[in-house]
Amino acid sequence: MKYAIVGTGAIGGFYGAMLANAGEEVHFLLNRDYAFVKEEGLHITSEIFGDIHLKKVHAYQRAVDMPACDVVLVCLKTTDNSDLLPSLLQPLLHADAVVILMQNGLGMEADVAAMFPDTGIAGATALISVNKVGPGQMHHLDYGDIEIGNFNIRDTRIIDQVVAAFDKTGLIAKKAADLVTLRWKKLVWNITFNGMSVVLNTTADKLLADAATYNLSKAIMTEVIHGANACGAALPESLVYDMLQFTIAMRPYAPSMKVDYDNKRPMEVKYIYEHPVAMARAAGYYMSKVDMLLQQLLFLSKY
Amino acid sequence: MKYAIVGTGAIGGFYGAMLANAGEEVHFLLNRDYAFVKEEGLHITSEIFGDIHLKKVHAYQRAVDMPACDVVLVCLKTTDNSDLLPSLLQPLLHADAVVILMQNGLGMEADVAAMFPDTGIAGATALISVNKVGPGQMHHLDYGDIEIGNFNIRDTRIIDQVVAAFDKTGLIAKKAADLVTLRWKKLVWNITFNGMSVVLNTTADKLLADAATYNLSKAIMTEVIHGANACGAALPESLVYDMLQFTIAMRPYAPSMKVDYDNKRPMEVKYIYEHPVAMARAAGYYMSKVDMLLQQLLFLSKY
Repeated sequence: MKYAIVGTGAIGGFYGAMLANAGEEVHFLLNRDYAFVKEEGLHITSEIFGDIHLKKVHAYQRAVDMPACDVVLVCLKTTDNSDLLPSLLQPLLHADAVVILMQNGLGMEADVAAMFPDTGIAGATALISVNKVGPGQMHHLDYGDIEIGNFNIRDTRIIDQVVAAFDKTGLIAKKAADLVTLRWKKLVWNITFNGMSVVLNTTADKLLADAATYNLSKAIMTEVIHGANACGAALPESLVYDMLQFTIAMRPYAPSMKVDYDNKRPMEVKYIYEHPVAMARAAGYYMSKVDMLLQQLLFLSKY
Repeated sequence: MKYAIVGTGAIGGFYGAMLANAGEEVHFLLNRDYAFVKEEGLHITSEIFGDIHLKKVHAYQRAVDMPACDVVLVCLKTTDNSDLLPSLLQPLLHADAVVILMQNGLGMEADVAAMFPDTGIAGATALISVNKVGPGQMHHLDYGDIEIGNFNIRDTRIIDQVVAAFDKTGLIAKKAADLVTLRWKKLVWNITFNGMSVVLNTTADKLLADAATYNLSKAIMTEVIHGANACGAALPESLVYDMLQFTIAMRPYAPSMKVDYDNKRPMEVKYIYEHPVAMARAAGYYMSKVDMLLQQLLFLSKY
């Protein structure tokens, strides 16, 4: 199987390198780091897996130069989905290729499926702390589990193959029973800690160390679970406690939206906030606090 | 009638000077500005009333040196109510003195009444844009209407006398039919624009110039009106539109909580947020967005 990584940032670089290191044929689409990676390869410094230096990398600067691949892992920020992604995907897709969106949020699969109605789409969530620390250099702090949920792939055995490939890398990979549940589960964390860390200019650990924002975090998580339930995702309220424990145990890590905001890059507000609020509302549940966080983020995104 | 001004900041300095300028006997309690005001008097530069220079001021540095007064106008920030106010009021109160709390928030009158059970208490709201710009110097930008609502004064004719005294100054003064309604009406503005300007580091005019925060402001105001209604305050939902129009017409003005936060002074979170949220909740209505703003402010108050 041939893999394409579209967007070789922290996530794309890490998972692509792990697959290549385990023997898979992986083709990386790069932008600014192309020349560097072509020359120097990809470096992963992982506190779990040690250092991985992938010396020879199939690196490309333009999607049209890449071979047709079987599995296209989209690791771009969702802020690039509407303007950039279609032109990158177009040349990569042969008749049986599948696209797996390794992104955060809700509703990306439907939007990409509308652009490419003949292509099978899946979504994946990565539970991971990884940062890009230089061109072609990723520092992996912790975690790395990956789950893949089908959106509209007819023959889902290809998902099993991808899961098996990831399993070989030493990461825990799973096929999710339901993509909607998978997406909402990740949103319970992302909606709460991404937005709050931006609005209050802080980190998840500090939010949980303070009584006021500990309680507010719980309230927002609970609201997201109720929104998920309204949309048919079977998440239990006890997930709040699991996520709180998980986050308290995490090493201090700036959520990606905070990194984007601090670096004056666009924030993933559309898929992480706008779509979930709209979808829960359409299903009869109004996430009042999440909507407030959304409006605060929209204001801050202009300043 | 003898008036005492407890707390000669922007509000106390302005209203006290207006009363003295209209011929009332006003005794000012000062702190850091005492020596300056004793020497130089009080200066009001008003864009409505022109300049007022009160050369001879009854200025005091300690409450025990002040004469017994008939009307004590408390113009301190509510953050001083529990620790500082009791010791300041104690020496000022003769048997028939009344205390009028010119402060923002909900529940101050009950707390002060608990400290001084034999004293008649009222509350007042001032709709005004005024800043202290130097020792004894206040710059009055706009507005100035004042409303006084009774809490537990037995003979309320004294409120009529105070209203008449304020009327002589050129300001519009009114006796409010109901203190609870008066307090909540002011909170519709204060809860919305104080907290939002702190959390989003901005001003009311910018909040209303942006579609996201315009809608969020409307939603928060509506929530406060529902909270007020639950507590028995007869505020109509149309008040949202009146306040939006009023705020859009206002000159840019930093809400007092924003000024306090920027100057690292304590914010009036207890009476402007905690009490209203708790009282509405006790009355059966949960102000979800206001509670979120409260938790965000509590977090920021520690950083």
